[in-house]
Amino acid sequence: MTGNEIESVRKSVPLVHCITNYVTVNDVANVVLACGGSPIMTDDTGEAAEIAAASGAVVLNIGTLNDRTVSAMQKAGKAANQNAVPVVFDPVGAGASALRNRTVEKLLAELDFTVIRGNLSEISFVAGIKARTRGVDAGEADRKNDAAAVARAAAKKYGCIVVVTGAEDVITDGEKLARVKNGVPEMSRVTGTGCMLSGMLGAYAAAAQDVFSAVVSAVAGMGIAGEIAYEKNGGAGTGSLRTGIIDALSRMDDETLGKRGRVTYEG
Amino acid sequence: MTGNEIESVRKSVPLVHCITNYVTVNDVANVVLACGGSPIMTDDTGEAAEIAAASGAVVLNIGTLNDRTVSAMQKAGKAANQNAVPVVFDPVGAGASALRNRTVEKLLAELDFTVIRGNLSEISFVAGIKARTRGVDAGEADRKNDAAAVARAAAKKYGCIVVVTGAEDVITDGEKLARVKNGVPEMSRVTGTGCMLSGMLGAYAAAAQDVFSAVVSAVAGMGIAGEIAYEKNGGAGTGSLRTGIIDALSRMDDETLGKRGRVTYEG
Amino acid sequence: MTGNEIESVRKSVPLVHCITNYVTVNDVANVVLACGGSPIMTDDTGEAAEIAAASGAVVLNIGTLNDRTVSAMQKAGKAANQNAVPVVFDPVGAGASALRNRTVEKLLAELDFTVIRGNLSEISFVAGIKARTRGVDAGEADRKNDAAAVARAAAKKYGCIVVVTGAEDVITDGEKLARVKNGVPEMSRVTGTGCMLSGMLGAYAAAAQDVFSAVVSAVAGMGIAGEIAYEKNGGAGTGSLRTGIIDALSRMDDETLGKRGRVTYEG
Repeated sequence: MTGNEIESVRKSVPLVHCITNYVTVNDVANVVLACGGSPIMTDDTGEAAEIAAASGAVVLNIGTLNDRTVSAMQKAGKAANQNAVPVVFDPVGAGASALRNRTVEKLLAELDFTVIRGNLSEISFVAGIKARTRGVDAGEADRKNDAAAVARAAAKKYGCIVVVTGAEDVITDGEKLARVKNGVPEMSRVTGTGCMLSGMLGAYAAAAQDVFSAVVSAVAGMGIAGEIAYEKNGGAGTGSLRTGIIDALSRMDDETLGKRGRVTYEG
Repeated sequence: MTGNEIESVRKSVPLVHCITNYVTVNDVANVVLACGGSPIMTDDTGEAAEIAAASGAVVLNIGTLNDRTVSAMQKAGKAANQNAVPVVFDPVGAGASALRNRTVEKLLAELDFTVIRGNLSEISFVAGIKARTRGVDAGEADRKNDAAAVARAAAKKYGCIVVVTGAEDVITDGEKLARVKNGVPEMSRVTGTGCMLSGMLGAYAAAAQDVFSAVVSAVAGMGIAGEIAYEKNGGAGTGSLRTGIIDALSRMDDETLGKRGRVTYEG
Repeated sequence: MTGNEIESVRKSVPLVHCITNYVTVNDVANVVLACGGSPIMTDDTGEAAEIAAASGAVVLNIGTLNDRTVSAMQKAGKAANQNAVPVVFDPVGAGASALRNRTVEKLLAELDFTVIRGNLSEISFVAGIKARTRGVDAGEADRKNDAAAVARAAAKKYGCIVVVTGAEDVITDGEKLARVKNGVPEMSRVTGTGCMLSGMLGAYAAAAQDVFSAVVSAVAGMGIAGEIAYEKNGGAGTGSLRTGIIDALSRMDDETLGKRGRVTYEG
């Protein structure tokens, strides 16, 4: 967190090309707008490469994958790689089905990612550690894995920044590592807070001078938004919490981030 | 309503596999989370059977059907039937087009459903009674049909529990029948309250000891959530009503259900 | 604005068939309901023509176009044209990719539109004026074009009503022209306000005696809804603004429209 990362996104208004799932796509678009970016959510193979090449970042999320959208992800990812556009990967449900596993392996083999974000089960699969994902939430067994070790293994394997989100979030490039303790447990009862964060990571990576620092800011920012939303209207329920998270992200500034961020560094 | 059905869902956190429409999918996921389940919304044919077999319940909703998603519904439904996983069917717009009619007939012929939920027009079509559905809302002409008779006919024909939602909701297994008088008329101006209830029915069926009783609880619970949301912020408008329904579902407990449920039984 | 256009929609409850993008489809459905219509969002080629022919209006939006949905748009549009059902076209991202440009040209060549609505970049492309769209937002360079001239050129070229939305909205049939100055800048930070307006235009066109006047009312109504939402809860953020817009639309009446509408006419 360098103290001007939110301002950088708001000033540069990066175009963020998301190929994402249709469950949380509206929230992802609203979050990209809230944090200062300009979202475009197309997933057709006929324009994926062209749009990706013209974007500030590409975000690939396999939440509701199918043949057409995975093909669009391949095209968008390759075009981004060729044009030095950062690519964020959200391997939703890695470990939960053979199809997801094959798709994650294929995309990891073909594309260079700037940031990979998932829960502990998903990143365990990415790291090649035996994982049993149950649906799209982190599996009980996987919680025994050490998030920092799993994240470091994945980051080294793929030469990128890895984020494991959970009660405590871990961000690492394989060597240095940051832990973020912001957020409230109630966020896990709102669908798509992970997807929203992946969208934010695209906007922040596009605008960043220092991508690692920007990723830490985005992760802390999402947690702080959850805290602010819960403080303001926490008793109301999870519908209000969702609205409040987007509200807080749309009003977030670097000062709030600096004051409320609970970040520690290692390594 | 046995007094512990909500608690059962919250304790068991059933995985609910929904193949549903992209209009209301986000609300369905948030409602499944709000009532205590864990939603997974994939609709690809390459993993539908695997995910369904590992789930606590499967929910099939044809709101925005196409070849790929109907094929995924067939695979998911068969895998669920083979693994004794309960299946909820929401025949959105049955009677409104030849495609919907053929699809509903095909799914009814191939799969065993645990619960079928629709409005009076849709269930009239399921029961084989002449229906003229206009779009996805209940047709005027069909309102002359007696909901209880239509529901009983459909339940007997397919050997399952049938729910007809409307100003008064009817739940029947072909013999016994419950009427639920909860809810407010303004709920019909929020898109997807029916889809949300079908998602809930999946979570409740997965966790249930007695499926009929659990279905009655879910139906009453959705109506009570609408009442609470309307009492709290009814004058604000339909955007707030939608948020309030999810809020109320996320805070619902068996005591509230017992106190506010307006349920009568027959037969 | 004739003083009874909102009432006309609420009384006739027109069925509005939308083939639209999956990013904002839920908001579009809720807005159609909020303003008094009945939405049906199907995009399958197997029923597009049948549903369109039975509808009060058809709305085509290419925000997340693909082969299947464009084919459904062609079928729905032709059936609507054959049955004198008004068709609204929202050429999202026209100018942003070769695929979008080809698709827009194809649909403009094959179908008769009643209303075309877009931002200045999109309508510049429709009018055949060189445009450089960046993503789905209006490009900086295009802001130099005069919206009124661009809208008139497009309207004359296609013999329909054209709406260019922006800080000031312009509505023209090629000759007469209205300018609407309602709305708040913060609306551009909520995804899909343009898509929502296109959905409204379908409902208003379906119920209208005078389509031009009804379009002006819908455009002013959306802007007023943004103002009311912002006045009520503007400081909260963009999540609340979105909910507030739908709230305000669900409570809008012709009196409010008459009092708050900032409309001037030319030509």
